[in-house]
Amino acid sequence: MELFAVPDLPEIREGDDLAAMVRDRVDLRADDVVCVASTVVSKAEGRTFDLGDFPAGPRAREIAARLGAISGEEKDPRFAQAVLEESTELLMEAPFLLTETRFGHVGVNAGIDRSNVPDGDLLLLPERPSESAERIREGLPVDRVVVTDTCGRPFRHGQRGVAIGWAGMHASRDWRGETDRDGRELGVTVESVVDELAAASNLVAGEGDGGTPAVVVRDFEWGEHGGSDELFRDVGGDFVRQALRGWEFDG
Amino acid sequence: MELFAVPDLPEIREGDDLAAMVRDRVDLRADDVVCVASTVVSKAEGRTFDLGDFPAGPRAREIAARLGAISGEEKDPRFAQAVLEESTELLMEAPFLLTETRFGHVGVNAGIDRSNVPDGDLLLLPERPSESAERIREGLPVDRVVVTDTCGRPFRHGQRGVAIGWAGMHASRDWRGETDRDGRELGVTVESVVDELAAASNLVAGEGDGGTPAVVVRDFEWGEHGGSDELFRDVGGDFVRQALRGWEFDG
Ligand SMILES: Nc1nc2c(ncn2[C@@H]2O[C@H](COP(=O)(O)OP(=O)(O)O)[C@@H](O)[C@H]2O)c(=O)[nH]1
Ligand SMILES: Nc1nc2c(ncn2[C@@H]2O[C@H](COP(=O)(O)OP(=O)(O)O)[C@@H](O)[C@H]2O)c(=O)[nH]1
Ligand SMILES: [Mn+2]
Ligand SMILES: [Mn+2]
Ligand SMILES: [Mn+2]
Ligand SMILES: [Mn+2]
Repeated sequence: MELFAVPDLPEIREGDDLAAMVRDRVDLRADDVVCVASTVVSKAEGRTFDLGDFPAGPRAREIAARLGAISGEEKDPRFAQAVLEESTELLMEAPFLLTETRFGHVGVNAGIDRSNVPDGDLLLLPERPSESAERIREGLPVDRVVVTDTCGRPFRHGQRGVAIGWAGMHASRDWRGETDRDGRELGVTVESVVDELAAASNLVAGEGDGGTPAVVVRDFEWGEHGGSDELFRDVGGDFVRQALRGWEFDG
Repeated sequence: MELFAVPDLPEIREGDDLAAMVRDRVDLRADDVVCVASTVVSKAEGRTFDLGDFPAGPRAREIAARLGAISGEEKDPRFAQAVLEESTELLMEAPFLLTETRFGHVGVNAGIDRSNVPDGDLLLLPERPSESAERIREGLPVDRVVVTDTCGRPFRHGQRGVAIGWAGMHASRDWRGETDRDGRELGVTVESVVDELAAASNLVAGEGDGGTPAVVVRDFEWGEHGGSDELFRDVGGDFVRQALRGWEFDG
């Protein structure tokens, strides 16, 4: 398996045809997986906004005041408003905003970025990243596309690449019913391949000014396995979300 | 960046010299990263046990009875005993056991595996996986080794590869103080490189009977970045752990 960044991509602007830009720069093969950072998908889709686009309501002002008091730094209530508008549920209000986005992904600040955003104050995640992945895929001679983001997680420090959208493949490789080296049924049943691809591509894309938002994964073999397309847990099957519903920051 | 499995590894047994087995099969370069599945590290370190090695105390019997009642399947209290002995804190007792292992990793059943284990009922994680990584590294002509496991996570379905030990490198690439394409300070500051390497190598290693527990990552460039060696969060900085402390399964 090989990974390489698509070279020489310019600053992406609203309306840019990402697929055309990628296919002009790389000699792609049908079985390549193209991983694209959500940052540039959002830029191409016009998801850049100014804080002024989000006049703060009372809820956002309350949240920002609390976060400001906790951090000792003033927080712009319009940013909290943007997060609220992107979200269907607030999992944590303090000491930071953890929400479920409209498309099911759980992340801090609804994944809204303030870095690598030249034309505005805020870059929102794509509205429906799997549809974005499908549109990009239609413009490429490859079968599989993943839209990635970088985000943190419980239990472990730091951030890593995750998939927020995918097309042309299942989200997970399903080992259910398969057996291990000794004929016993497997403990691990569902391997989140799109997340592992996103993590791998993040090693090449980086987080900074590298200018490498698109990464080609070549010779990744899915193998003879079933697939599953569930990636985001519902609260019913997510005990951590249930626990967070009853929890209150008191620090 | 390129990844490939170390070919033709046999069934690993207690006392096997994993480093020698890898270096005999691959022409390694100093800047390769060798990722090794904890399964085989554990086998080599004699971490295979029988259920009979863990006579259940009252706590384990209570836990197993509860889990049995929830699942409608009898649960062996000796398995719960093994999990307790591997753990320093129980984060969840039901509907499954989520614990912090002695070396700081949070996982279901303390990472104890029942698949790919021919000689006993249970395979425990290495006792100190970063020391295991260091020992393997000393026997290899490479600078960097990662010990991986597969585990699940909140918010997202499925499992993915994570690092549980590492040697010869920092756990994370620290982008703090660096700037984005527009000179703004970066939003993402600490990229968990060892987890991203583990996830990437898992795509190649698989979860089944592939017999490919060791994966070489070639031409991964760290770049000019600082590093951090914190991977496992303390409860003080982990709000999800705090929330779980006050939560009780009632399903
Ligand atoms: N060529 C190019 N690279 C970009 C652009 N925006 C971001 N990048 C690069 O894309 C990669 C990922 O950026 P990041 O902000 O971490 O994206 P995210 O993980 O999707 O939030 C980095 O190498 C950035 O330098 C752009 O408009 N053009
Ligand atoms: N050659 C060889 N491969 C093994 C052995 N044990 C497990 N594997 C392989 O190692 C890979 C990872 O196995 P898995 O059970 O998922 O390990 P874990 O992720 O560390 O729990 C799979 O390809 C297994 O077939 C062994 O003793 N010898
Ligand atoms: Mn982002
Ligand atoms: Mn990123
Ligand atoms: Mn395991
Ligand atoms: Mn595994």
